[in-house]
Amino acid sequence: MKFTKMHGLGNSYIYVDVFEETLEEHELPRLARQVADKNKGIGSDGLILIGPSTHEDVKMQVFNADGSEAKNCGNGLRCTAKYAYEHGYVNKERFTIETLGGTMKATVHPDNTGQTVSLVTVDMGAPEFDWGRVPVKEQGEGELSLEAAGRSWQLMPVSMGNPHGVIFVDDTEQAPVETAGAELETHEAFPEGANIEFVHMRRSDVMDFRVWERGSGVTQACGTGACAAVAAAVAAGKSEKDKEVTVHLPGGDLYITWQSSGNILMTGNAEVICTGDYETRRASI
Amino acid sequence: MKFTKMHGLGNSYIYVDVFEETLEEHELPRLARQVADKNKGIGSDGLILIGPSTHEDVKMQVFNADGSEAKNCGNGLRCTAKYAYEHGYVNKERFTIETLGGTMKATVHPDNTGQTVSLVTVDMGAPEFDWGRVPVKEQGEGELSLEAAGRSWQLMPVSMGNPHGVIFVDDTEQAPVETAGAELETHEAFPEGANIEFVHMRRSDVMDFRVWERGSGVTQACGTGACAAVAAAVAAGKSEKDKEVTVHLPGGDLYITWQSSGNILMTGNAEVICTGDYETRRASI
Repeated sequence: MKFTKMHGLGNSYIYVDVFEETLEEHELPRLARQVADKNKGIGSDGLILIGPSTHEDVKMQVFNADGSEAKNCGNGLRCTAKYAYEHGYVNKERFTIETLGGTMKATVHPDNTGQTVSLVTVDMGAPEFDWGRVPVKEQGEGELSLEAAGRSWQLMPVSMGNPHGVIFVDDTEQAPVETAGAELETHEAFPEGANIEFVHMRRSDVMDFRVWERGSGVTQACGTGACAAVAAAVAAGKSEKDKEVTVHLPGGDLYITWQSSGNILMTGNAEVICTGDYETRRASI
Repeated sequence: MKFTKMHGLGNSYIYVDVFEETLEEHELPRLARQVADKNKGIGSDGLILIGPSTHEDVKMQVFNADGSEAKNCGNGLRCTAKYAYEHGYVNKERFTIETLGGTMKATVHPDNTGQTVSLVTVDMGAPEFDWGRVPVKEQGEGELSLEAAGRSWQLMPVSMGNPHGVIFVDDTEQAPVETAGAELETHEAFPEGANIEFVHMRRSDVMDFRVWERGSGVTQACGTGACAAVAAAVAAGKSEKDKEVTVHLPGGDLYITWQSSGNILMTGNAEVICTGDYETRRASI
């Protein structure tokens, strides 16, 4: 099976081009677990199939490392867009991608030759501040005060389709992401849990960012979390709409703009690590 | 850069054929760290170069995931032997491999076609029971009684070039590998630390095996540990010389024989996971 391994901010997947390769649907969960395994497989956060869509320009199907199917993946969308453009499956710079979570809009930014892409912009939709939509247990909007790791925290609950709690701190390096993040993720205030972002505005257009991801713990990057953090910064008067904010995540930078028209645009890298041929007929996979 | 990812019992490396590829010596530690990284690289336990030797049939150079150079690697030797044979760099089934730790002897077992190899035997040298050679702090030989995790353990110290402490238990699944293993690794009795093996003899030729590896913690497989365990079983009268013992490790099986002539032969699998082309010219590696 031919594959391409790509990453966006260190979030890596094994990509299989199902315009070319034929895979059995019922074998995909097992294949995802196998290729994601660093020991006996290739090593990745999961498996993404890039193929034809009946109603959009291209289709992306995401499987996590545990074999479950994911609705979407911001870092995966950028890599999928790069791949579809570079391989000629789309012949325009703005196009749509079908995902299990709905249709996504992507814009690639080709280099001077027009052949290769290293930056991609994805429309991430509109943030929601209504506590009922995040969801938060109580009714309301705006900041929420919660106890964790022996002290009180002011969080801004935000939904980007998934729940976030954004905390402004003076120094993200000193923030107790592992302890307070873990406690706040499963705090009774968040009935479905939450991703917890610790952010610091250096300027109105530069943000430091660390995250505790729901179900994953500390990770190098969380695209929806970075969008939620920029939305919270604008809501708190620390930045403004239509301003591009550079977000420094441990895995790299994202460039995020909350447009006055409502949606958030997120721009970031997409890189090929390697191309290869995976041996599917082996004794021990 | 062309590469092959192979594993033996889940111990995986990125193999580069330096008969064909040219790599700069001073860049190897960085390259090893990069390719071993699951997020922005391929994902492995390190990097192994297979190339010409001035005085042996083939040369293997091993770099750990942290960029340090390793003297040897039992699982890597089997994959190196498979690769050298299948690519025609050696044209015999028994041959020698130059390593930083000295010359190793390997025997490949080709399939009926004579083209592919999935099992390889490596001569692992002779075990040492003299405490001074392991080393153990005190002088002596035979079993040693140590306290760890709230109880007393009977260990057999064995050197296979590196230090081991073998413990016979009734049930390896129930053995407190994480707690007692961690404490015994750094026990003051072992001035250089030790790998701690928890083993159970089902029969004189079948052993269950779990290991706490020095510096790595719980791992799927430890070739020298399995050899030390079989040597300890023979010394304790639970098995005998010239008998092939099947050792069930979490990562798979090894077949180990302590020969009356002195050395231990270890046979195990070697598998290709994928072949590929690694992008060395990227923005963020």
